[in-house]
Amino acid sequence: MSGTVEVNEAGADSRSAKSATWVRRAEVPPFSPAQGIQIQPVIGESLMTCWIAMEPGAVVAEHSHVHEQLGVVVEGSVTLTVAGETRELVVGDAYLVPSDLAHNGVAGANGVLLVETFVPIREEYAKAWRAIAG
Amino acid sequence: MSGTVEVNEAGADSRSAKSATWVRRAEVPPFSPAQGIQIQPVIGESLMTCWIAMEPGAVVAEHSHVHEQLGVVVEGSVTLTVAGETRELVVGDAYLVPSDLAHNGVAGANGVLLVETFVPIREEYAKAWRAIAG
Repeated sequence: MSGTVEVNEAGADSRSAKSATWVRRAEVPPFSPAQGIQIQPVIGESLMTCWIAMEPGAVVAEHSHVHEQLGVVVEGSVTLTVAGETRELVVGDAYLVPSDLAHNGVAGANGVLLVETFVPIREEYAKAWRAIAG
Repeated sequence: MSGTVEVNEAGADSRSAKSATWVRRAEVPPFSPAQGIQIQPVIGESLMTCWIAMEPGAVVAEHSHVHEQLGVVVEGSVTLTVAGETRELVVGDAYLVPSDLAHNGVAGANGVLLVETFVPIREEYAKAWRAIAG
């Protein structure tokens, strides 16, 4: 990775320097894993927290992963289905998806902004982001 | 812990059952680690995400911990100091505090609402919360 966005990654250098990482969302280039979805990650050593913005009706197809996933709705609404259980979530709701559990989602009429954390880091997201962020 | 708030904890039972945990912030009893600060945790297996509400001018005294800490400002503003570096953060800002790094904070004029994740789980927070949540 180049130095242009290194402020957003706690890589070897910042680890040895032991300093905070400060991130402004507007300065984090988003990547798009699917139509109408933009992800802006903040990558730590053991965790990754992402702003995930979904346009109205945008769909996350069913998938699963080994990573534990804990999300909070900060704007709008989303309908999530996890292991066959469906809930509509609004601002102030949170959800925890255990590892390897199938889940999918659809953004509400006004879209949704989520703050989602993955442990361990989702390397395919980190890779997709670095491809854009440089 | 009793069963009254078990929906908010991915304990042994929910792990074996492999289902999502759904949390409404209004239903999570807060604990207060210091004056003017209320914490509502969502506890997973490997991570803990907390809504942290601080009243205007509320202070988090300098401290450090082994846990990696990644926070996002979702309402208001806060001034954080990490290892001697001070920043004022507003909605849309995030920060990553590496393990064992001294940090402190003061809420802004309108208070602040943070979504903060700790890895590993801060057991003293979990314990304080369970003492209230039952």
